[in-house]
Amino acid sequence: MLINVLMLCSDHQNAKLGVAQQDLIDRYGLGWVVTQYSIKIKRLPRVDDTIKVTTRGTSYNRFFAYREFWMHDEQGNELVKVDSIWVLMDEKARKIREIPESIIEPYQSEKVRRVPRLPRPDRIAEDAESISKKYQVRASDIDFNGHVNNAHYLEWMTDALSLKFLISHTPVQIDIRFENEVKYGSWVMSTVLVDSEDNDKIKTVHEIISNDTLSCSATFLWQKNDVKGNEDK
Amino acid sequence: MLINVLMLCSDHQNAKLGVAQQDLIDRYGLGWVVTQYSIKIKRLPRVDDTIKVTTRGTSYNRFFAYREFWMHDEQGNELVKVDSIWVLMDEKARKIREIPESIIEPYQSEKVRRVPRLPRPDRIAEDAESISKKYQVRASDIDFNGHVNNAHYLEWMTDALSLKFLISHTPVQIDIRFENEVKYGSWVMSTVLVDSEDNDKIKTVHEIISNDTLSCSATFLWQKNDVKGNEDK
Repeated sequence: MLINVLMLCSDHQNAKLGVAQQDLIDRYGLGWVVTQYSIKIKRLPRVDDTIKVTTRGTSYNRFFAYREFWMHDEQGNELVKVDSIWVLMDEKARKIREIPESIIEPYQSEKVRRVPRLPRPDRIAEDAESISKKYQVRASDIDFNGHVNNAHYLEWMTDALSLKFLISHTPVQIDIRFENEVKYGSWVMSTVLVDSEDNDKIKTVHEIISNDTLSCSATFLWQKNDVKGNEDK
Repeated sequence: MLINVLMLCSDHQNAKLGVAQQDLIDRYGLGWVVTQYSIKIKRLPRVDDTIKVTTRGTSYNRFFAYREFWMHDEQGNELVKVDSIWVLMDEKARKIREIPESIIEPYQSEKVRRVPRLPRPDRIAEDAESISKKYQVRASDIDFNGHVNNAHYLEWMTDALSLKFLISHTPVQIDIRFENEVKYGSWVMSTVLVDSEDNDKIKTVHEIISNDTLSCSATFLWQKNDVKGNEDK
């Protein structure tokens, strides 16, 4: 839901600036695709909270655009900060294209030599003691533009963990990198390695593999919930 | 999403009347469980529409409560009407209990001999030419109270249809009946039979089966979208 709300915010900005996703597809055959998120969570919103979501197209170079997101509560406390890297994909050729000035100009982003380098997720060693679960891409996983909604990769990743773990832990940091798209009807294998506790943060390393190809990898840091549960924090 | 929004509306009513779901569980060990929905869809909301959702606990007898939902657009046109039948379940024993006056009284429902009988979904004949897909219950399918969120049965049902069918059709009526709960981690088989066209409505019959037990059945009526797609209707 966090990812969906952030995406809604950037969709609104795109439309307001006259460069809505659907317009880019219709006019140029191009679509924005995220390659990496780095998500830092101080606190997740509680039921009935009102939150404010902010986004900025901060900087870009020939091929990459750096977009930031913030989520604040009503008192102005930062709840979540997200850094993300985007590319423009030719929808037909499925190839990355240079970012045209006409598309990036409305964001008043800074043109830079290098966009920030986000943390690269760990990989799972071949002989590691991991757990796997398999999933088939559903119709409801597919976005208006025919691609798997990114939020579903996170669902496949977290669901490979036990229900007991998910109830008793809250993510505080997620670094995720998208490598290869999976298609409707494909089966994916979600594998997770739970790292030994370190400073009372638990690290989990995730891989989504489809057709022997790495589709997506991520590193999560988790905090153990208070005994009364996360809602009471 | 439709089901989730309706449930949010009844949750808000329950809380406002001092009989929130969590209070019933804490005080009586009881929880409301839906056994049937009959959903009539005139038009689904479009992106950026503002809609109004209304609910009423209309009538009840010893064991069953009849609840209605309406969805209207800003001009007051009815978009969706839902009839539903509910029972009170003992959360530990997993058995249906009589509805105590103290729980139903705040709704000012009419006490009746018989609550309305909703249409019973068709069943799929053994030798019918059906299509099946299997799903494993995920952590994210589970509600705060430990049960599978009802909306996910609808997702398993519709996903057994082809993406092509789902893109080119819109449901106009859904009659769904919940029989037996499925548990976290269980595999379910979603089977669908597509009935021959009749008066340009298409009927699909659905069954969700887990451990050789019928968990849920439904009949959907679908309308073919205009060539330009449902969004333009």
